[in-house]
Amino acid sequence: MSDIAYVNGAFTPLAEARVSVLDRGFLFADGVYEVAAVIDGKLIDNEAHLARLERSLGELRLKSPVPLARIAEIEAELVARNDVKEGMVYLQITRGAAERDFGFPKDAAPTLVAFSQKKNILSSPAAQNGVKIVTVPDLRWARRDIKSVALLAQVLAKQAAVEVGCHEAWMVDADGLVTEGSSSTAFIVTKGGAIVTRPNSQSILPGCTRRAVLALAAREGLTIEERSFSVAEAYDAVEAFLTSASSLVLPVIEIDGRPIGAGVPGENARALRQLYIECAMNDAT
Amino acid sequence: MSDIAYVNGAFTPLAEARVSVLDRGFLFADGVYEVAAVIDGKLIDNEAHLARLERSLGELRLKSPVPLARIAEIEAELVARNDVKEGMVYLQITRGAAERDFGFPKDAAPTLVAFSQKKNILSSPAAQNGVKIVTVPDLRWARRDIKSVALLAQVLAKQAAVEVGCHEAWMVDADGLVTEGSSSTAFIVTKGGAIVTRPNSQSILPGCTRRAVLALAAREGLTIEERSFSVAEAYDAVEAFLTSASSLVLPVIEIDGRPIGAGVPGENARALRQLYIECAMNDAT
Repeated sequence: MSDIAYVNGAFTPLAEARVSVLDRGFLFADGVYEVAAVIDGKLIDNEAHLARLERSLGELRLKSPVPLARIAEIEAELVARNDVKEGMVYLQITRGAAERDFGFPKDAAPTLVAFSQKKNILSSPAAQNGVKIVTVPDLRWARRDIKSVALLAQVLAKQAAVEVGCHEAWMVDADGLVTEGSSSTAFIVTKGGAIVTRPNSQSILPGCTRRAVLALAAREGLTIEERSFSVAEAYDAVEAFLTSASSLVLPVIEIDGRPIGAGVPGENARALRQLYIECAMNDAT
Repeated sequence: MSDIAYVNGAFTPLAEARVSVLDRGFLFADGVYEVAAVIDGKLIDNEAHLARLERSLGELRLKSPVPLARIAEIEAELVARNDVKEGMVYLQITRGAAERDFGFPKDAAPTLVAFSQKKNILSSPAAQNGVKIVTVPDLRWARRDIKSVALLAQVLAKQAAVEVGCHEAWMVDADGLVTEGSSSTAFIVTKGGAIVTRPNSQSILPGCTRRAVLALAAREGLTIEERSFSVAEAYDAVEAFLTSASSLVLPVIEIDGRPIGAGVPGENARALRQLYIECAMNDAT
């Protein structure tokens, strides 16, 4: 964990970075967030993250206390001050502190918090060896397209994965279709070689890394099918992988204890991970 | 708003009461809460609230940092220090501050925050005149029986009510059946005189005031039907009301712009409110 955080206009030691107990992020999960990866001290795909932040804010009629361009500066300053070579920057905006009442407060100033975390992004055992997935029921609310901090269902899903030795949980709606991972997007590759991932809707978060990887796959001439897939189809896939800002592209080698394909990282996942890293670093800010 | 709050072992001015930005209540809505009313300086039905707190904690495998009996002492001390004659005490327990990661942290100490609010409980225009309701889609997650702070859907529902001049929103599942209010339990009275409210399940929060009011209604020999009801049936009811810890029993006089019954507070709501107040104050601690 790095040492300096940003809270409402001031850089402060993370250990002393605090918000009011009346902050609506704490009392109501009335806030949104973004996480951007840092590689070589540069923010990866951050324009897409800030665009999504703006969308989330708009959906909840939340206002950022500073312009988006200033947020990017704050993020860059955190990277520099904390000397983050690889890791991520987290930022959260809430509706601010106000006397507790469910409706929007009339005059609360929104809260902006940001901090960084150091983490191996480029080389990790997960990237090398692939990861295991467990499927769990998707308990979430109906607006999963908003990147809100109401993450309790995702916490329980991830914990369920951890407890059975898995890296991630893929959440499954009552109709048997996979929505996405607790903090990542789910992909499979069919026997016909098509890359399948669920289309964006209110049922999933529109992944920034998902978008970038799909664009790269299209550029490479791969077949893409944006459609839902069932757990059964995932078991039967020749390959599977996930994407997220902080893990980029990770091969999935096992789902619910069943090996996927040969049970080793697939070639599409490896290739797309490599392409994504090259592309992201070229565009990094 | 009263002046002294409790945060992790210390009483502190509310204006200075803060939690870490890494608190999982702030980052993940990974916490639960309770609100108990205060009348005549006494906590109302607090045993039921603490029992429900214990259940919520158990469902999320959260631990209270102090025994429940100590929580009751803290609540009483807040009432005394802040000289709350009428109002409520709010308390929240989260999984504590830890480096941000979705799964449960290994060694974080849980956070306990409590504060009080002054508010007219016994006599209010809402109790006297009744309140208006608007119905909205229930966007919430699948475990509404856990009183978690992942309240964003409820915030949006309440705000929708406020913006059309209503006191509360009744949330409606895709099947057209009312679940409950954004922060209250929904009741109707049929032409046959039966008091109807949805049975407890994972679809609603098991209301403490709901439970107490149903017990009183049964004691009075009223007919109770614990079953779901549709919005259409609510429009057609002869009476409607809501219950919550901080508003006790409130008559509902209008739903979606349609007067309920004669469009004035109903006799069952008035009678049950009076009975609840008498009973609650006898048992208050």
